[in-house]
Amino acid sequence: MNANKIPDIIIGRLPIYLRALQRMADKGIHTTSSQELGERVGISAAQIRKDISQFGEFGKQGTGYRIPYLIDKIREILKVDRIWDVAVVGAGDMGHALARYPGFVNRGFRIVMVFDNDPSKVGQQLGDFTVQDTAEMAEAIQKADVQVAMVTVPATAAQEVADKLIKAGVKAILNYAPISLTVPDDVRVQHIDPATHLQRMTYYL
Amino acid sequence: MNANKIPDIIIGRLPIYLRALQRMADKGIHTTSSQELGERVGISAAQIRKDISQFGEFGKQGTGYRIPYLIDKIREILKVDRIWDVAVVGAGDMGHALARYPGFVNRGFRIVMVFDNDPSKVGQQLGDFTVQDTAEMAEAIQKADVQVAMVTVPATAAQEVADKLIKAGVKAILNYAPISLTVPDDVRVQHIDPATHLQRMTYYL
Repeated sequence: MNANKIPDIIIGRLPIYLRALQRMADKGIHTTSSQELGERVGISAAQIRKDISQFGEFGKQGTGYRIPYLIDKIREILKVDRIWDVAVVGAGDMGHALARYPGFVNRGFRIVMVFDNDPSKVGQQLGDFTVQDTAEMAEAIQKADVQVAMVTVPATAAQEVADKLIKAGVKAILNYAPISLTVPDDVRVQHIDPATHLQRMTYYL
Repeated sequence: MNANKIPDIIIGRLPIYLRALQRMADKGIHTTSSQELGERVGISAAQIRKDISQFGEFGKQGTGYRIPYLIDKIREILKVDRIWDVAVVGAGDMGHALARYPGFVNRGFRIVMVFDNDPSKVGQQLGDFTVQDTAEMAEAIQKADVQVAMVTVPATAAQEVADKLIKAGVKAILNYAPISLTVPDDVRVQHIDPATHLQRMTYYL
């Protein structure tokens, strides 16, 4: 398996399969088929078979996929068979919601620090965290070797924050600010912007 | 222009172009090129020219695009040259953040009602809204002709909420619950799940 050869678009679908498989496992279901999985995630059975076959022979014709085995394999491929420490920058409403979000740990992530540059927020308790000053961010991230960050600051501040994070060693940014970030080639950015998602749908209304 | 023939993937990029163009307009920039826009959004200039040319001749060789004109055109295509009323279901941390999010109105959306089934939340003030009982949801949505909803309830409740919303006339759902929703063909779903986005990036770390 040459990791670098798997197309981005397939990597993008694996977390969706994983989520559905974990949900089936939670319900006590042990095997599934590409048809059943396809119905759950809205992707064709043929596409699912093709995607999964990229990584080896996980299922058998006729007997389907063993869910726990497939979960283990996808977690391994996506490197979420471990826990990644995550920094949150921006302790507003969204930072607040993320810091208290219970859905990260069993999917490979753990928030370990929250930053804000607003003196009225620094030192406050936010879920399990004390909000730290953004001025201390670079050092804290470097020291703890944090590679993943979520940015929930206003659009005007997001690029500057991203630059600082990258300089401190962050390689993956989940950006909630409504602005596209410019980053070096070795840094990954994913974007969550509810208005953009809504606009993708109104076209069809 | 035959709206039904434009591929989903192009429609998906238009909100990203629109966001970048609006940001340039806010900064007082009046014209741009496919190169400049491409650098801002991380998409090739050739792709941008191809996407935009689907809808007609908006730019001139050598002089680039007039930003206000292009903004108007994309807003018209995406149908966000109007304001869509939006219902939020789930008044937890995420519903709270969305209800107070200032970034919707100038992008075509306005939250008009918030629902929860928790008696301790019903009647409470959340930003500008009084949280209503989910039991009243279908009637309120039907009466107000709301077609767009954001679902921030737990995974176990999300499908049932979606079914009720669809029955009441909702045609576009932004789903924050970590579960894939099953919906009829004439209903659109977009999914926001931070763990999925993070998992797309760890593969590359």
